[in-house]
Amino acid sequence: MMKRYLMAPGPTPVPVEALLAMSKPILHHRAAEYEQIFSEVRQGLKFLFQTSTEVLVFASSGTGAMEGAVVNTLSPGDKVLVVRGGKFGERWGEICQAYGVNFEAIDVEWGNPADPALIEAALKRDPSIKAVFVTHSETSTGTLSDLKTIAEVVSRTPALLIADVVTSLGVTDVPVDAWKIDVAAAGSQKGLMLPPGLAFCSVSDKAWEMVAKSKLPKFYFNFTAEKQNIEKNQNAWTPAVSLLMALRETLALIQQEGLANVFARHDRLARATRAGVTALGLELYSKAPTPAVTAVKAPAGIDGGQIVKTLRTKHGITIAGGQSHLKGKIFRISHMGYVDTYDIVTAISALEMTLAGLGYPVELGKGVRAAEAVLMEGKA
Amino acid sequence: MMKRYLMAPGPTPVPVEALLAMSKPILHHRAAEYEQIFSEVRQGLKFLFQTSTEVLVFASSGTGAMEGAVVNTLSPGDKVLVVRGGKFGERWGEICQAYGVNFEAIDVEWGNPADPALIEAALKRDPSIKAVFVTHSETSTGTLSDLKTIAEVVSRTPALLIADVVTSLGVTDVPVDAWKIDVAAAGSQKGLMLPPGLAFCSVSDKAWEMVAKSKLPKFYFNFTAEKQNIEKNQNAWTPAVSLLMALRETLALIQQEGLANVFARHDRLARATRAGVTALGLELYSKAPTPAVTAVKAPAGIDGGQIVKTLRTKHGITIAGGQSHLKGKIFRISHMGYVDTYDIVTAISALEMTLAGLGYPVELGKGVRAAEAVLMEGKA
Repeated sequence: MMKRYLMAPGPTPVPVEALLAMSKPILHHRAAEYEQIFSEVRQGLKFLFQTSTEVLVFASSGTGAMEGAVVNTLSPGDKVLVVRGGKFGERWGEICQAYGVNFEAIDVEWGNPADPALIEAALKRDPSIKAVFVTHSETSTGTLSDLKTIAEVVSRTPALLIADVVTSLGVTDVPVDAWKIDVAAAGSQKGLMLPPGLAFCSVSDKAWEMVAKSKLPKFYFNFTAEKQNIEKNQNAWTPAVSLLMALRETLALIQQEGLANVFARHDRLARATRAGVTALGLELYSKAPTPAVTAVKAPAGIDGGQIVKTLRTKHGITIAGGQSHLKGKIFRISHMGYVDTYDIVTAISALEMTLAGLGYPVELGKGVRAAEAVLMEGKA
Repeated sequence: MMKRYLMAPGPTPVPVEALLAMSKPILHHRAAEYEQIFSEVRQGLKFLFQTSTEVLVFASSGTGAMEGAVVNTLSPGDKVLVVRGGKFGERWGEICQAYGVNFEAIDVEWGNPADPALIEAALKRDPSIKAVFVTHSETSTGTLSDLKTIAEVVSRTPALLIADVVTSLGVTDVPVDAWKIDVAAAGSQKGLMLPPGLAFCSVSDKAWEMVAKSKLPKFYFNFTAEKQNIEKNQNAWTPAVSLLMALRETLALIQQEGLANVFARHDRLARATRAGVTALGLELYSKAPTPAVTAVKAPAGIDGGQIVKTLRTKHGITIAGGQSHLKGKIFRISHMGYVDTYDIVTAISALEMTLAGLGYPVELGKGVRAAEAVLMEGKA
């Protein structure tokens, strides 16, 4: 017997309340019982996105919401700005390319946050830019960008701010209305503590004006069709009913905890993780770490993939390795979603034993001690 | 206390085996445990589609698979043929229109099957036609078209046959390879006995040749990206893991029962339903009823919506009403998926009591008697 722990940056652990909701008898999506659930879900999503506008829901992975954000706001030949500092920033560019949208890239060295001044300068240089695509929390590098300042910059121009908040929503503050984020795209299997299969887009009034003029082709991810339906408490296409039943549960958990507490918890767990790994003599990969996931450089002479594999096979713990050119160079420990104090203790403890087993000089308990000094905040 | 029965044509009832699979701890989609599940799912889907080619899996509703079938095989300005005899046939045309594909429509009077001779004539008249879009089982009218003969006609030409098999797959014979169906698009919440949220496309070698030349834009529903990943036992985007865990269960149920038995069961249940409603003096709406769902004309003087509402509120039974211009004119009883003998007895019995309550002259038990005469086949 080996207990299993999921500490990869998506899917993240699903609370039993949500798992059991999915084992309830399936509901018909035109039934009153479903509409009651969807009504609560709509309310909970507005709370989570901190918006007064409707949050659109799609049966898809988060990439579907990203595609929706592109095809519903733009027209062929439009020029946009894409900030790329990792695999998910690159995805914005790939979607634009697939749909014939011209994009100027602001390439950020991986592990660094986006520089709002560069975005401001680019928008000044070319007032024809229709939208700015950014990644709030770049999961591939464990980096958080300053979305608030970026939003201040973009909101002063006619351009839309379209943000991937996939691993920041429900993890750190993303006040969509207050910051003036025009489209925020998210998925279910991160801070929302659900299995993958749902995606979300908030859409500002400024974005809706662009939607009305957009000429890119779309059908499944059609914002206008979803808006017409959501106003009737329905969905354009058959919704993923069981996932929505589970979503009601996790939104309730988030509302019970309160957004400020949710964000403080993630901040505490992330700081504890960083304290733990640095106490072991390891180096953080990111210059601006996200509270969603900690990216750690593999120590010299040890392959990051070996750390990931040992944790999985000998300790039952699933973390993530590096992607693209970071393969083998970093490993990533997630602390987002349904995660608390002793998940971090487990992660750091397992890392100590794994590194010791792989021949890296470790003082057992040193990382845990450093993590505990952070974790006990507010508990003593 | 009122027990609930789901008898609408999707979502259909989900067996407890599948419901409980979704309540298991979530798996990471790069883990060996997931790959074992996905490997079994791939095998089961090939069995169900009766194909030796890979069946692509999407996290979306069935409409996503339909969009995928269009955008992956065609190029802007291509001419295609769309057979429309109901709401879902119309959807093929709407997707083509959204993506700038020229389509010639063959409009079939609702409730009638497609005429293969008209398709043959159209293909002869215009050899530039690149694809023929048909609906095997038209859920909105309860009508089954002769897909085998249509496939014979289309396969003799360079055009692709692209079929919506959403409510025929797992219900009646759809031997994709033997009949030469180039793309068969399906969803999870029908014969596959799952919640909504998964969609499927089989793709023939002839279709893959068109995919290689296709110039319509696509990103989330990209067949080529899925093919590259499925060959590595993976998915292009994060898959809907919990639904795939449930899919393994329902595919196992289908394989245990055997395709021939699955189809015979649906045929028996459909004939029993038709016998039951006609014994009550009601008229079938379709000239070629599908074994998935029986569409029944509301008797003169009684609104179909009233029948649906009474069944739901007084009897706990969810059936479907008519869509578009059939609203109030018909009602539809599903017998697809996780359905057996006594579900039909329940449906006909409830219909007798409902009609009697609404003032329609009914001899109580007469419909059930007629249904039983069919249902007892092979049981005496």
